[in-house]
This record gives sequence, C-alpha cells and structure tokens, in this order.
Amino acid sequence: MKEQRNGLLLVISGPSGVGKGTLVNALMERNQKIKMSVSATTRAPRPGEIEGVHYFFKTEEEFKAMVDRGEFLEYIHVFGSKYYGTPRSFVEQQLENGYDVILEIDVQGAMKVKQAFPDAVLMFITAPSMSEIKSRLIGRGTETMEQVEKRFATAFEEIKMIPQYDYVIINDVVDVAVHHMEAILEAERCRTSRSNYLSESIEDTGR
Amino acid sequence: MKEQRNGLLLVISGPSGVGKGTLVNALMERNQKIKMSVSATTRAPRPGEIEGVHYFFKTEEEFKAMVDRGEFLEYIHVFGSKYYGTPRSFVEQQLENGYDVILEIDVQGAMKVKQAFPDAVLMFITAPSMSEIKSRLIGRGTETMEQVEKRFATAFEEIKMIPQYDYVIINDVVDVAVHHMEAILEAERCRTSRSNYLSESIEDTGR
Repeated sequence: MKEQRNGLLLVISGPSGVGKGTLVNALMERNQKIKMSVSATTRAPRPGEIEGVHYFFKTEEEFKAMVDRGEFLEYIHVFGSKYYGTPRSFVEQQLENGYDVILEIDVQGAMKVKQAFPDAVLMFITAPSMSEIKSRLIGRGTETMEQVEKRFATAFEEIKMIPQYDYVIINDVVDVAVHHMEAILEAERCRTSRSNYLSESIEDTGR
Repeated sequence: MKEQRNGLLLVISGPSGVGKGTLVNALMERNQKIKMSVSATTRAPRPGEIEGVHYFFKTEEEFKAMVDRGEFLEYIHVFGSKYYGTPRSFVEQQLENGYDVILEIDVQGAMKVKQAFPDAVLMFITAPSMSEIKSRLIGRGTETMEQVEKRFATAFEEIKMIPQYDYVIINDVVDVAVHHMEAILEAERCRTSRSNYLSESIEDTGR
C-alpha cells in the first residue's frame, strides 16, 4: 500500500559570504539522497562545465521559449544580459524519484518558488550577527570599502525577509549548522501535512 | 544581548498501547534539559509517590478553586470522581528556566493546550498501522474482545485528530522514533517564528 515517498524541496538563501556553499556541500556529502537543482543559463559554458551537471546551457531564444511555456519555477535576468532559471521538470522528476532537492537562490527567487511549491521548505542561512557579516566581507579583502558597504546593505535587506522563511540557520560552527539542517529535513518528513498515515488508516479499518 | 532561550512545550498524544511512555522515557534519558510536566490530581497518593514529583496532590476543594482561578492549561474529570490537570505556573516556570516540557495528554487536552499556548509543538505518536494497534491490544491479553473493540474504536477516533497535530511519529523501532523526536525539537528551535535574529540584527546595525 505504501508508495515511495516524494523528496523534499529545500530552498536555501542568505547573504553572500555566510557559507551557504560550505554547508550545502557538507550536507550533500553526508546524505546521498540529496541533490542540487541544476539551473538553466544563457551564459557560455566555462572550461570543465558539463551540460546537465553544472548547468543546462541554452540560447537566449531557447530560454525565452521556456519562460513562455512556464517551464521555470523562477528565473532571473542578471547584469543586463544573461538569464538563469530553475527548470520545474528537473526538480519535479528528482522529487518523484525520492531525492531531496536543494535550490540555492536569492530571496526574490525563493518567494516565487514558495508560491509555485507551497510544500517547499525555506531555510535562511546567516552569520552569528550583522557585525560578523561585515567582518567577513572586509576580511575577504577583495572589495573596496564602498563595495563592502553596498554588499552589507544588500545583506540587511535580505535579512529583513527572514520571517518569510520557515527556518533560520546561524552558521557559526559548520558541523552544528549542518546538523540543524539534517534535523530540519528529518522533522519535515514527520509533519502531519506530509503524512498519508490517516488516509491509510481509514483504508486499513475499511471505513 | 542574547537572553537565555525559553524551552519548548511539547504535547504528546496517541492511542493507548503505542509506546508513548517508552519513547518519552528514552527521550528524557538522552536529554537532560527535558522535563515531564507534573499534573495536579484529587486522587490519593499511592505508596512511593512524592508530592511535586509524581503529582501535586490536591483536595477537590483546592482543585476546583484552581480551576476557578484559571490556573490549569487543561484539566479532566475522570471516572465520575477524580480530577487531573496541568498547572500552568509549573509549566511556565520550567520553560522560562530553559527546560523543554513534555505534556502527555489526550487529544481533547492537547487541543486546549494548543489554544492556550499556540507556540506548543504537538506530536502524535502511533503504531505503524491500525492492524498493528489491534494486534498490540489483543497481544496484551488483559482485556476481553469487547474491551479490545472499544479501545480500538477510541484509537480510531484519536487518529482522526492527526491533522490538528504538527508531527506524527510512527513507533516502529524505538531508537528511530526517539531520533525523530529529537530532530523535531532541534528543528523547532531553528524556526524563524521563534528567532530573535532579525530584531537583534536591527539593533546591531543601529536602525
């Protein structure tokens, strides 16, 4: 009677520099049933990038046709030229195969996915404090103070969106943060809203 | 700036015979910051029962006065004679001291607690299937088939309330079920609705 359980769609956002990539990689290393979503893009492949693994590479014409057909969960048009988007079919297929799928996207994209996929689990990753975010931005030493200020202002705008997310993960110690993420996935699988237990019980008693 | 974090109020219900007590005991053994709520009752202490540990023993007059003063999160009047209730003050004090508090109560009591404490986490514990619940009731061998049928009908009424709970735990393997409960507690502590991160960040940037 029990069917294979669908995977969870996990949407991850957070200011740049808080370590989202590190956490996601650690999470995936420890859990073989979690996959990253593969985005479509109109930018050219870089050396070593593989179609269908790193990106689905599309011409602008192909990309726009996919937009018109509603084939993206969300997409953005950045730097005035290149498009990036999350193909709905790829995500749905992985979920149906029982994989949890991670989307690492910005807050605007996350809100669009929440609308399209109300069952998605939204996780906001951040540093222990705003001061810490500033220190990390300065510590990278790759940007002017003006750029740091701009990124910091963006980070603050992003943080204001936290109430729209389900969970907030403070990335202080990586192992602790990854453990929180794993606990959230385990807990979400126990949510009554995802459970078939009641309907199966009704069948079981013949009522 | 950070205050001590309040504990979580964990409400546990489920049909009799599904192993709620076993899971709760195992959970408490592994987590020193979890306490059972202590109920008040009008029944007489049994040998070895300690006031304030097993129960708060009250006369009927005292109990009714507490009811009138709104001092119970929920209470029931069973077998036409004895009262049992959950004193709000004891629970609140433990939560303020940072302890997670477990209330093991029936579905009606759980709904009352949810109203009084919308932040409570409601967990429904059950067996892998209705057939399994029946087998366990019969397997105890302590009841007539008529009593088994009655308990089974009650179990089915309880199971219909699952959508009112946040989580459902299938007690098949004890260790797995306890791990789910621990994951739920960890995940719930990461919920944005319980987080001060945004308000602290606003202070941190002086806005």
